[in-house]
Amino acid sequence: MLIVKIGGGAGINWDAIAKDLSGLAEPCVVVHGANALMKAVSLKMGVTERTILSPSGHTSRYTDPQALDLLTMVYAGLANKRIVAVLGRHGIPAVGLSGADGRLFLGKRKEVSLSVEGAKVKMIRDSATGTVESVNVSLLRLLLDAGYLPVLTVPAITEKGELINVDTDRAVAVLARDLGAKRVVMLFEAPGLLQDPNREDSRCPSLNERELEIFLGQAQGRMKKKLLAVQEALSFGVREIFMGDGRTEQPITRSLRGEGTVIRSDA
Amino acid sequence: MLIVKIGGGAGINWDAIAKDLSGLAEPCVVVHGANALMKAVSLKMGVTERTILSPSGHTSRYTDPQALDLLTMVYAGLANKRIVAVLGRHGIPAVGLSGADGRLFLGKRKEVSLSVEGAKVKMIRDSATGTVESVNVSLLRLLLDAGYLPVLTVPAITEKGELINVDTDRAVAVLARDLGAKRVVMLFEAPGLLQDPNREDSRCPSLNERELEIFLGQAQGRMKKKLLAVQEALSFGVREIFMGDGRTEQPITRSLRGEGTVIRSDA
Repeated sequence: MLIVKIGGGAGINWDAIAKDLSGLAEPCVVVHGANALMKAVSLKMGVTERTILSPSGHTSRYTDPQALDLLTMVYAGLANKRIVAVLGRHGIPAVGLSGADGRLFLGKRKEVSLSVEGAKVKMIRDSATGTVESVNVSLLRLLLDAGYLPVLTVPAITEKGELINVDTDRAVAVLARDLGAKRVVMLFEAPGLLQDPNREDSRCPSLNERELEIFLGQAQGRMKKKLLAVQEALSFGVREIFMGDGRTEQPITRSLRGEGTVIRSDA
Repeated sequence: MLIVKIGGGAGINWDAIAKDLSGLAEPCVVVHGANALMKAVSLKMGVTERTILSPSGHTSRYTDPQALDLLTMVYAGLANKRIVAVLGRHGIPAVGLSGADGRLFLGKRKEVSLSVEGAKVKMIRDSATGTVESVNVSLLRLLLDAGYLPVLTVPAITEKGELINVDTDRAVAVLARDLGAKRVVMLFEAPGLLQDPNREDSRCPSLNERELEIFLGQAQGRMKKKLLAVQEALSFGVREIFMGDGRTEQPITRSLRGEGTVIRSDA
């Protein structure tokens, strides 16, 4: 069982990914982002992304009701169905699902976030963000056993039936845990993990858990979050995480060959 | 097997529908529209709906690439996942799918449409509209047998992997044919089929096929299309079509009781 997480960058080569997936022998679940498309549609709709700066200095998305609607339209709607269509053109019977469908990604909403605004700290109670706590594995197996490729994205859903935004990399960690997947591929717009985020030739070919810990100390922003999710995935029993370049031909095959960055569990 | 088609009007009472569905004994597939939401989002995005006027006087949607994107966002994204969430709050394990997922609604794109523009007739070749030709019944049965309620909407998809807009009422007819469903419920924002579209007290309690034919002669616009789809469904083997008011409590139960309009096959 392989989990393939594909970032939402504008440069991701979905045709190459589809071609690559169609040649894979093992069963596979795809999880995708849609960040670039979200930004483009937000711009068209005149919606600006709001963020929350926590007292500890963490920045996160403020998913107000308008942002949640937009996210649901773009991720579960446009991006997901475009991907299903591309995969179909390469002969892959894909089924696109959000975390709400069959409570695939069941999670908890963060009831309160602290937000630093100038000299004040505000309490934000209406942000539809949270974390995935469990995955409906039986629905995934049902589809996989029938030969379908599940293509998953946000939003997730709570016990109360609220749609929530969640970090897809952390959702992948819980998905790997619940599916018992030992290998995860993560594709984004870089040749792998970079020592210097501004230099594509500074790729780090492999890391063990201790090296990951050191790397985490220097990482920032989006990449820091990604590496925290990687750490979580390893703690959940994943053995190898293959990061690779989603802009190239054969991105999955090449990542699995170690041409990006391989992060290995010490276990 | 019951098919429940729910219109996309703003007044549709989804809580009442969910409550009603949760009490149904027989397996069921839901198909939904999202017209009001589509209009609201189009307005926000500054997109105006384009239509094609055929030489024979028929008006239809001109689904240019922008309209197709919007439709995919609103129908398969926002509307579909909101419905899945409402159903979940009523204890129904719903799985929302577009016609692209697993090629659920496989169709053909209309390659050329004739459009009357002033004194000229133009050929339109880029409209992503078409008709459903077959339904992936095995995917639906897989989900139904596992206890899930499939919640379906547009877009459909072609053999070539193009997303297309289709008339959902006609998609329901093909769905009924392929599932072998004998009964279809259609809910919208009226107490049933009205003799006079402006008078809600002019409900027609029942029609046989010949009466439907007469009714069709007078019907116009949206309702005419709906009745043509009903006629198609009857020709495909559906025995009874129950039209009813989606704004009320227990809308499905009441429609099945004959409180709206029942259209019966002569067969």
